[in-house]
Amino acid sequence: MRPSGRKLDQMREVSVEVGFTKHAEGSALIKMGDTHVLCTASIEPRVPPFIKGSGLGWVTAEYGMLPRATNTRMRREATSGKQGGRTVEIQRLIGRSLRAGVDRVALGERQITIDCDVLQADGGTRCASITGGWIALRLAVNKLMKAGDVISDPMLDPVAAISCGIYAGQPLLDLDYPEDSEAGVDGNFIMTESGKMIETQMSAEGSTYSRAQMNELLDLAEKGIAELTAIQRAACA
Amino acid sequence: MRPSGRKLDQMREVSVEVGFTKHAEGSALIKMGDTHVLCTASIEPRVPPFIKGSGLGWVTAEYGMLPRATNTRMRREATSGKQGGRTVEIQRLIGRSLRAGVDRVALGERQITIDCDVLQADGGTRCASITGGWIALRLAVNKLMKAGDVISDPMLDPVAAISCGIYAGQPLLDLDYPEDSEAGVDGNFIMTESGKMIETQMSAEGSTYSRAQMNELLDLAEKGIAELTAIQRAACA
Amino acid sequence: MRPSGRKLDQMREVSVEVGFTKHAEGSALIKMGDTHVLCTASIEPRVPPFIKGSGLGWVTAEYGMLPRATNTRMRREATSGKQGGRTVEIQRLIGRSLRAGVDRVALGERQITIDCDVLQADGGTRCASITGGWIALRLAVNKLMKAGDVISDPMLDPVAAISCGIYAGQPLLDLDYPEDSEAGVDGNFIMTESGKMIETQMSAEGSTYSRAQMNELLDLAEKGIAELTAIQRAACA
Amino acid sequence: MRPSGRKLDQMREVSVEVGFTKHAEGSALIKMGDTHVLCTASIEPRVPPFIKGSGLGWVTAEYGMLPRATNTRMRREATSGKQGGRTVEIQRLIGRSLRAGVDRVALGERQITIDCDVLQADGGTRCASITGGWIALRLAVNKLMKAGDVISDPMLDPVAAISCGIYAGQPLLDLDYPEDSEAGVDGNFIMTESGKMIETQMSAEGSTYSRAQMNELLDLAEKGIAELTAIQRAACA
Amino acid sequence: MRPSGRKLDQMREVSVEVGFTKHAEGSALIKMGDTHVLCTASIEPRVPPFIKGSGLGWVTAEYGMLPRATNTRMRREATSGKQGGRTVEIQRLIGRSLRAGVDRVALGERQITIDCDVLQADGGTRCASITGGWIALRLAVNKLMKAGDVISDPMLDPVAAISCGIYAGQPLLDLDYPEDSEAGVDGNFIMTESGKMIETQMSAEGSTYSRAQMNELLDLAEKGIAELTAIQRAACA
Amino acid sequence: MRPSGRKLDQMREVSVEVGFTKHAEGSALIKMGDTHVLCTASIEPRVPPFIKGSGLGWVTAEYGMLPRATNTRMRREATSGKQGGRTVEIQRLIGRSLRAGVDRVALGERQITIDCDVLQADGGTRCASITGGWIALRLAVNKLMKAGDVISDPMLDPVAAISCGIYAGQPLLDLDYPEDSEAGVDGNFIMTESGKMIETQMSAEGSTYSRAQMNELLDLAEKGIAELTAIQRAACA
Repeated sequence: MRPSGRKLDQMREVSVEVGFTKHAEGSALIKMGDTHVLCTASIEPRVPPFIKGSGLGWVTAEYGMLPRATNTRMRREATSGKQGGRTVEIQRLIGRSLRAGVDRVALGERQITIDCDVLQADGGTRCASITGGWIALRLAVNKLMKAGDVISDPMLDPVAAISCGIYAGQPLLDLDYPEDSEAGVDGNFIMTESGKMIETQMSAEGSTYSRAQMNELLDLAEKGIAELTAIQRAACA
Repeated sequence: MRPSGRKLDQMREVSVEVGFTKHAEGSALIKMGDTHVLCTASIEPRVPPFIKGSGLGWVTAEYGMLPRATNTRMRREATSGKQGGRTVEIQRLIGRSLRAGVDRVALGERQITIDCDVLQADGGTRCASITGGWIALRLAVNKLMKAGDVISDPMLDPVAAISCGIYAGQPLLDLDYPEDSEAGVDGNFIMTESGKMIETQMSAEGSTYSRAQMNELLDLAEKGIAELTAIQRAACA
Repeated sequence: MRPSGRKLDQMREVSVEVGFTKHAEGSALIKMGDTHVLCTASIEPRVPPFIKGSGLGWVTAEYGMLPRATNTRMRREATSGKQGGRTVEIQRLIGRSLRAGVDRVALGERQITIDCDVLQADGGTRCASITGGWIALRLAVNKLMKAGDVISDPMLDPVAAISCGIYAGQPLLDLDYPEDSEAGVDGNFIMTESGKMIETQMSAEGSTYSRAQMNELLDLAEKGIAELTAIQRAACA
Repeated sequence: MRPSGRKLDQMREVSVEVGFTKHAEGSALIKMGDTHVLCTASIEPRVPPFIKGSGLGWVTAEYGMLPRATNTRMRREATSGKQGGRTVEIQRLIGRSLRAGVDRVALGERQITIDCDVLQADGGTRCASITGGWIALRLAVNKLMKAGDVISDPMLDPVAAISCGIYAGQPLLDLDYPEDSEAGVDGNFIMTESGKMIETQMSAEGSTYSRAQMNELLDLAEKGIAELTAIQRAACA
Repeated sequence: MRPSGRKLDQMREVSVEVGFTKHAEGSALIKMGDTHVLCTASIEPRVPPFIKGSGLGWVTAEYGMLPRATNTRMRREATSGKQGGRTVEIQRLIGRSLRAGVDRVALGERQITIDCDVLQADGGTRCASITGGWIALRLAVNKLMKAGDVISDPMLDPVAAISCGIYAGQPLLDLDYPEDSEAGVDGNFIMTESGKMIETQMSAEGSTYSRAQMNELLDLAEKGIAELTAIQRAACA
Repeated sequence: MRPSGRKLDQMREVSVEVGFTKHAEGSALIKMGDTHVLCTASIEPRVPPFIKGSGLGWVTAEYGMLPRATNTRMRREATSGKQGGRTVEIQRLIGRSLRAGVDRVALGERQITIDCDVLQADGGTRCASITGGWIALRLAVNKLMKAGDVISDPMLDPVAAISCGIYAGQPLLDLDYPEDSEAGVDGNFIMTESGKMIETQMSAEGSTYSRAQMNELLDLAEKGIAELTAIQRAACA
């Protein structure tokens, strides 16, 4: 039995509130159980130097966590003077994952920055950020298309992410914090609606895993991604 | 006429949602019109070195703004490697103001950190932070008292804050962003429910003001503080 | 009785030595009792990006304190890698106050930076910085006018600053360090020679104040500003 | 055909020079083709705060690249004032991977830091760092055992890492830089000698991959890991 | 002929004002022509970790320059977030030089920090800092001896410093800024009153020098040091 | 007798491996006994702002030490967020010394950066960096000349550096780490093949030295420089 009481292949309840803030070109508050992430998309005309003049667009992401999003207060990264290693790693992953779902030629030479700020954390914040970030991105691109700034839709298949892990020898879908901190193996799976894979990360801490176990987690992930992409479509409809 | 269409002495609509996040000992999402600030209170056993062993408590504050809380995206302070001057100034003001409403002997040797994170900004974020921060603080202290960790209530009169300004020669209560950016003089007034003053800040940018005008703004502020402290009491009831 | 032995409304002795350093376009060593601040004005052709091309000038300030300006040695800000919160707050106040006394159109598109470096501290360093900074600014502008680079005098009324506080229930003018560290309420008042107000800051630490008390301090401040602006005029004559 | 002229499943030539530097408790210069990484292991009695007093050991890693290890000179991280996101991500991966091959109870409460410094880069530096880092770690642990400081061997199965990727539709083993920069999908596979998996990272940039392709890369990786762990054993014999 | 009109072996006029600031245990404003440096000595009970418990004392130095000490305003090091390379190099030299003149056993386990802050610069600031720093140090040690905290005088021979250089083929004593910026070779010579050498630094920029020229500069330096140590003795009498 | 067993005027064995890394325009691994420094030269078209458009070239240097180049592991400068004072001082010395051996007109408006990274340290790393850095520079300039980018050879006399010191009252050539840490006086002498002097640095720590002793060290240094420049010529032949 899972600490959460959920079935092995049962996701937490997911809700999405689009337009949570008014200034951003796209915004969504995504809740996966007690993990709440505010995702905003900001369109800027400038692109990074390495693609200037190429005609290609860029999607990048930044990730943050409010100091008391967690059980004990963490030091604010702005006061410690830098982003921690975990933060940097997560925001690089979010950016990479969302770019995989975008036709950068169709987007045109502009940058969209996805800010994912965790208001409350209970495990799986990077996955919620990717899933919610895609919604914010989709909404911002809708605005560009409505304004005629972008003609052909640059958004490919919806992109979502889900964590799976091995807990007490059992494969679990969508780990919450208590499950995650006890799991010997956990993985993040980023896929498109049609099941194409974008990124796979599976780590063992103080443990190892077999290819058979890896395949079990991949099966679970495919199930979760299907549910999440349906929710994404519904939220943006 | 004000850009907002409000009467000269009319505040924006205020709403408070307590318990917005679950981990913090006290939390509140305060909305003053389109300015939305998430305030959390975190209790920690350690106090700053300069009062260690004194038996006195401490209340401090940190302030942040999400990158897209504003009309154009601002650089995340964690990536620029430091808190800007405005941020530092505001969080010092919040801490100072809230400490004035606390009996530090009754609080006992512990620290409460108030985090004020602006999710959406439309002027008056520092005042909303103080007003909402007091609510988070009150809720956290309630928990300490319920647990028997604090016996005598350390919370004095409610503390609230409101901005006033001179716009087109007229004194206005509770400036929103468009009003604030046009006002030649603006002030922040931090007072207790019973009208005692804790902090007064009045600045002219490219302008000056007379003592008579200062008194007009003080009158307006007293009216606003009375309304805000009633809302604080209702939210914590 | 005050710790300093001064009368309630008596300022410390003030002296000004203009031209204390030779490179700056304007310089003055101002002494308010044992508080000694070296103020220099540096003229630069470039202005901040947000007013580039506007034809308007800019006045800004930086504030520093030598490590042993105080009773115990403080860490040098250059070695700690950043300016502290108090430093940032003070230099923003100095800049804002001096700008209020300048016609930025008449100044023309150039920047004058006022550096205020405290050689010895005994309370009231921010006020001495503003009062002495105005002198350095006046001298630098004189040079611009003499050279024909500025035609119409951009300097409006002299701007000065004075602290007042409530000590043992009594309103005091111009707090020195021992008085300041005991005062429950203290304020900084920045005004022009003709009594127009530019900035008012009044804070209570572990205390509150009434509007009546605020008015008493304002009366004292007006007396002090009159004395200081007379000294400024004499120094620049 | 691969740009390198190698067969699809052919690794670059690998050589290891143990004892390359004299001060470290373990050191090895590993060359995978033109990628040269100096790995050193430093034993320290202190452990991180979160395991102090637990009796458990810790293995951590730091990664660096000399400014001219690459085709064009990169800015030295010490002068830019911080480690870049890529550096932080890589060194976290190295530490995590090597810890998975260590019995932390048997190691005892001490820390071993693996420094991986890239002298020359041609793709696959993180994999070479893990493979070479394991050798340095093994040598340092040998010293502890010889000195009787550690009784039971804490080193589990050898840990090695190899990259694979999809290039022009073909699965390739051990990408060099020209191959890596053209590959639409690349992955890093960290496994033990006996084929247990520790970490899997597979990313698509501007592309996606199927589960079938993932399995092809896993097959290649298993082949590479077998060759690398044989080299590790030989180097430490 | 020198740009300054001085004779080849003629120092600038030197004046010393001891007790320039009141808080420091020792302080002196030294003027070597237009180079003005405020030197303060601060006694602290703590010593650096590497000599804790050794019974030995420590003397260290920090160096700073006010932003407008120079002809054009320099960026304040506290705002740029770090001390520049030149600053670090100079303060290490000052500390090393002054330590050479102190019996660290007699000083006892305490630290004296010499702060050298350049109020106005016209060449030779590091030499003026050492010469003035010694005076501040001597005065602080006098206080320790008077209080009975130090019994045997730890101050050995006075330590002073002077620059010499080769300008238009001629050896010059005590270069001012215009001379220094034109000299192909310049050196700093730190010696004791009795002519013992502590530190020699001679550099050519875009040029070289012979041993014969080096000896000429050493002769000049000995003359200058004799004059400076006489001034030091007089100032501390 | 020296701890190393060498004769007073005997250098450590020196070896040079040119072309140690493939990307740099010039590279050499220099070993002076157990001190091993990897020197690379990188040619860049841009020059520092202060010589832009002058037609003059620039040579600069950066210095680093791998964390475990020394007997106990040092903190990596990239993680501590800045280069230490010793690092900055050494790299300024290397740059200054190498520039003295270059005709900057003949070099033309380009910058060559010499990176000196200490792989293993046993005293004298700055001298090995200068001597090895000159070789890397010579090789890079050879490439420029071969390509016809530079016509007239900008390399003047070879530049080398050697340390000398006074140990147990005896003058020693080329101190290794155990000798250096016991020497009361040590110096670094940078000269050209023909005996012209570029930089002299002689320091006493807790000691002093006479002019006679300085001359003895200069004699030793001249002998060492002659041997080193012969090795440089041979390595580049």
